[in-house]
Amino acid sequence: MGILVVGSVAFDSVQTPFGRVEEVLGGSGTYFSTSASFFTDVSLVAVVGEDFPREHIDFLAGRNIDLEGLQVQPGRTFRWAGEYGYDLNEAHTLDTQLNVFERFSPVLPEAYRDAEYVFLGNIDPELQLRVLEQVRRPKLVACDTMNFWIDGRRDALLRTLERVDMLLINEAEARQLAGEANLVKAARKILDMGPSSLVVKRGEYGALMFDRHSIFAAPAYPLEEVFDPTGAGDTFAGGFLGYLASCNNLDAAALRQGVIFGSVMASFVVEQFSLDRLRSLDYRDVEERFRRFQLLTDFEGIG
Amino acid sequence: MGILVVGSVAFDSVQTPFGRVEEVLGGSGTYFSTSASFFTDVSLVAVVGEDFPREHIDFLAGRNIDLEGLQVQPGRTFRWAGEYGYDLNEAHTLDTQLNVFERFSPVLPEAYRDAEYVFLGNIDPELQLRVLEQVRRPKLVACDTMNFWIDGRRDALLRTLERVDMLLINEAEARQLAGEANLVKAARKILDMGPSSLVVKRGEYGALMFDRHSIFAAPAYPLEEVFDPTGAGDTFAGGFLGYLASCNNLDAAALRQGVIFGSVMASFVVEQFSLDRLRSLDYRDVEERFRRFQLLTDFEGIG
Repeated sequence: MGILVVGSVAFDSVQTPFGRVEEVLGGSGTYFSTSASFFTDVSLVAVVGEDFPREHIDFLAGRNIDLEGLQVQPGRTFRWAGEYGYDLNEAHTLDTQLNVFERFSPVLPEAYRDAEYVFLGNIDPELQLRVLEQVRRPKLVACDTMNFWIDGRRDALLRTLERVDMLLINEAEARQLAGEANLVKAARKILDMGPSSLVVKRGEYGALMFDRHSIFAAPAYPLEEVFDPTGAGDTFAGGFLGYLASCNNLDAAALRQGVIFGSVMASFVVEQFSLDRLRSLDYRDVEERFRRFQLLTDFEGIG
Repeated sequence: MGILVVGSVAFDSVQTPFGRVEEVLGGSGTYFSTSASFFTDVSLVAVVGEDFPREHIDFLAGRNIDLEGLQVQPGRTFRWAGEYGYDLNEAHTLDTQLNVFERFSPVLPEAYRDAEYVFLGNIDPELQLRVLEQVRRPKLVACDTMNFWIDGRRDALLRTLERVDMLLINEAEARQLAGEANLVKAARKILDMGPSSLVVKRGEYGALMFDRHSIFAAPAYPLEEVFDPTGAGDTFAGGFLGYLASCNNLDAAALRQGVIFGSVMASFVVEQFSLDRLRSLDYRDVEERFRRFQLLTDFEGIG
């Protein structure tokens, strides 16, 4: 099984207390695909401008990511600039230039329409719906969103949620979407909107996965060096859903292990700027850190 | 094995978004003892004023807490008033009246001096040292502290830490004590100050336990109703150390299970004001919630 993702491909300029980079490879689609490619085949639907360099295309293709759905349009690639303070949990956006993304309309190549695993990255929910109209019978549709769409495109978002199996959002967004301060109650309200699972991302505090019957709590991996949190959420989603697609299994154990694999991938990506840590990462590193998560959380088998 | 605790016994007045109480039973020693009493015998060293009512004495004695070390002094009992907003993670102190606590000098009855498990609640580190001078050869000394002592009594606190096996503090305090924003690095610095384990309490995000070789991450129990977080940290410590004393075992598995029992107790106490939830709690409820923590965190055995 492979996985289809629609999202952004961008140039990011990022400042953290530990350094600064200009116009490096970024975007939700990029982070997701690269992370998922450690587990399964990935097909990417996105748009870039004519300024998008060959080296980035080569990098993605070299990760075995199918780029038939990557449109190259006249104009400039999407650009985002942001900074983080010592509280690395929150990005402050300095500049957003949509550029070619402004007129993006996702078109799925015929071969993509049979995708069984689909991730709708954090884009306009109208576009997420347009993707769903093109896929035939997916086994799992997961989506991300953000405060901007929850506020500004609530109706479209609610229509998308009705057709989605899993929503992945951060904690403040979950509260905002549900209009409820208590997270357990907020989760129940969100599950009533359509998804059968909800994954709440809590940055350095890990993630919670809710369904109607149970809750799963996963910690984040405690790191000595968090260099740049950009893309951590999409990298998490890529590891999580990439793992699910690779084992083509959606039972409770697979879902929980997927959350851990997502956490593993996110713990790597924040160690360097952009996707740089993933460029040098080996699957054995992934397995090794998965085992470290077992040691981190186990309170029965050890001692 | 029993456990010896020195801490405060107080009247608390608390306002949360969900209600308000005046002069209810509180204090670090009270929360700790009551929680630990579910697991083991407890001896309490503290001071109250002549206004401390018989019903509270009867409640503590009814929990099998040894009160030979509870001094009754002329004057009024310690009083604290605070409020919480919807972000229940942080208390805003409105008023503190030390009263009899101002001249408190802990004196251990002879029978207490052979205690093997000792908890030094969040009081002046000079007083914590004075307790340590009176115990003969404890197996485990754990202590709590707060920003007020980290700032104002740093030298005494560092002398206390040299003689302590375990420190339990919250996340911001760990960063403040170490002068280090990254929690993993902060933990290493704190372990260099003396304790062989550090437990970092993160409120609704759970707890991390560090030693020189490993880290254990425990979630908090996701609750639909958090009514009043007052005393959650001391209740956590009481469950944790009470469990350790009850099994008289300090290996890695016992320590980790202790953190979970502490989290279980804390998850109950916040469900009602003051200690009220613990008044009606049964040990079977504790065991049941321990099993729920297993289901909450397991990613191997389920499915």
